[in-house]
Amino acid sequence: MSLAYGPDLPCLGKRKEAVAVPELRKDPITGRWVIISTDRAKRPTDFVREAVKQKGGFCPFCPGNESKTPPEILGYRSSTIGGPEAPRDTPGWRVRVVPNKIPALGIEGNLDRAPEGMYDKMNGVRAHEVIIETPEHDKTLATLPIKRVEDVIWAFRDRMVDLKKDKRFKYILIFKNHGEPAGASLEHPHSQLIALPIIPKQAIEELEGAKQYYQYKERCIFCDVIRQELEDGGRIVAENNGFVTLAPFAPRFPFETWILPKVHDSSFDNAPTHVYENFARALQTLVAKADKVLDNPSYNFVIHTAPVQDGPNDHYHWHMEFMPKLTKVAGFEWGTGFYINPTPPEEAAKFLREASVETPTQQLVGV
Amino acid sequence: MSLAYGPDLPCLGKRKEAVAVPELRKDPITGRWVIISTDRAKRPTDFVREAVKQKGGFCPFCPGNESKTPPEILGYRSSTIGGPEAPRDTPGWRVRVVPNKIPALGIEGNLDRAPEGMYDKMNGVRAHEVIIETPEHDKTLATLPIKRVEDVIWAFRDRMVDLKKDKRFKYILIFKNHGEPAGASLEHPHSQLIALPIIPKQAIEELEGAKQYYQYKERCIFCDVIRQELEDGGRIVAENNGFVTLAPFAPRFPFETWILPKVHDSSFDNAPTHVYENFARALQTLVAKADKVLDNPSYNFVIHTAPVQDGPNDHYHWHMEFMPKLTKVAGFEWGTGFYINPTPPEEAAKFLREASVETPTQQLVGV
Repeated sequence: MSLAYGPDLPCLGKRKEAVAVPELRKDPITGRWVIISTDRAKRPTDFVREAVKQKGGFCPFCPGNESKTPPEILGYRSSTIGGPEAPRDTPGWRVRVVPNKIPALGIEGNLDRAPEGMYDKMNGVRAHEVIIETPEHDKTLATLPIKRVEDVIWAFRDRMVDLKKDKRFKYILIFKNHGEPAGASLEHPHSQLIALPIIPKQAIEELEGAKQYYQYKERCIFCDVIRQELEDGGRIVAENNGFVTLAPFAPRFPFETWILPKVHDSSFDNAPTHVYENFARALQTLVAKADKVLDNPSYNFVIHTAPVQDGPNDHYHWHMEFMPKLTKVAGFEWGTGFYINPTPPEEAAKFLREASVETPTQQLVGV
Repeated sequence: MSLAYGPDLPCLGKRKEAVAVPELRKDPITGRWVIISTDRAKRPTDFVREAVKQKGGFCPFCPGNESKTPPEILGYRSSTIGGPEAPRDTPGWRVRVVPNKIPALGIEGNLDRAPEGMYDKMNGVRAHEVIIETPEHDKTLATLPIKRVEDVIWAFRDRMVDLKKDKRFKYILIFKNHGEPAGASLEHPHSQLIALPIIPKQAIEELEGAKQYYQYKERCIFCDVIRQELEDGGRIVAENNGFVTLAPFAPRFPFETWILPKVHDSSFDNAPTHVYENFARALQTLVAKADKVLDNPSYNFVIHTAPVQDGPNDHYHWHMEFMPKLTKVAGFEWGTGFYINPTPPEEAAKFLREASVETPTQQLVGV
């Protein structure tokens, strides 16, 4: 999915009064929900134009262009000694969170479920936000100072804590598309957050799988995976005080890598401070290793966490899944849910494990 | 997934004696099976090289190059009047089916299920075949004479009938990657077939969803969809005597389109002749319309059919799902199973429905 920002969208930062509300639709056979987003590129010619869009040029996420995005939801700023903090929507921020959508769509409205003949639908997405990770256009999660990566993680956490207060939200997805082949439409480093009134099918399946294992063994399956992988070592990529980075046993994609907290926790958003510090370090190490081994690949990551309205549980274990975009294999796997991966995870882990990286803090080398 | 053919693979047509057997692995949390294919490009530098691979040049699928593929499994040839049919693995074929893999891997061997610690695995894929759709490198399913498209459909059917005799195969996937963005590594028109010792997760879900509906309503959900859509008309793309082509209510991708047989049948492979004739016409019409509206897009299609060892049933309904590759949205959707589609299916259907196309047979215009 691309962002609703870019040189070919004329109304940036302006509020449109009347805009079609996106619709959630449920496939009656598989039960899969889909967002039909009607306020974006949609006519055949739009896709053709998208294909030839040029890089470079104006960047709405760079400092000085704050007026080209909707007003910020969150900004981390430092006050200068003896001086006040810089005001909202002006330069001086370290991380900035803005809505992706034109604000009129915002988080207003009731959740209207409705039938359409034999089908089911619901009105739109409630929140779609962009986390602008740094004011520096050319930095990445691998090259930012570690404290700035921590800021990004904190922004994820703060937005999740804030949005879960709204009981209509059942699930919050935090993810990043890095590089055009991975779906990024802007170069400036950013992640995204989508708060949903439903729980995505794949999250349900993961939760159910973990629950079944727990019912049988009375242990968390992710904790068991961590234990077995640390003992075996062959799929371990890196490790620090709080996190294990590993290639999963059955990865869908070459060099797919997961970062898991060592201490059991079902939710991303309620951890002690040192967990986010260690998570930032694990993430920076992984991105730096991938950059080195795979020559600065495009990638996606997704934070997998329990549904926001659920209390803590013993069977689910939050984690991040990191997927470099190396193969052009979309359609078949999309169409079937069946994956063919040309790289054994043991080999991928070995390459990543053995890559020594120097990150800005110098703390982050290897296992 | 790309094919194991191409200018950078030196041993085409030669049998390798010892090659690592691909492995099926099961993700312990979601139950998703993945093929870890160890005999293909896999080192980091292989991905880099793949990215810069040039088009054009030698084509192993063109007539005259039959020795550059493993020996053919099936070939449709015409005998000249009074003369014999051309021999196997020589020019003169209309459709040719060859193994994708080096034949040593073939369809030999037992199905060994084995644990690895807490994980489950199984040895390799049993069959992966390539259907070379025409000797003419520059033709497409839209521009071939309709009888040649029928040949392709018959090749799908004949291979499925043959492979299902082997009771180890539980599911047969037939699909096409057309164009590089859709995962095709060769330009020459071809489809693929994979026979699997397991049923892919997404097929199970579709079967289960259809079964639940049937248990409740005692009607096939696909038959109900066809009825409702024909009545409503807004998502219909085309129709002929045997098939309805429509945009589904909750499509994952812009211009996603399904082709469904009007007469209920759970399996693709046991239909009367006229069904394949009508299916070929419906498919050619759809590809021609997509070519016109979307300017010759890359695309994937997948035939969804019941597991090959099951008898006919009343709840599942075979069909084809056609997905143009218009957006670069891979990672997020891959990672979450959650889809955002910028094009309402009603608009996509309207564009496709209204595109008048002239196919070689002139029989195939619109609804």
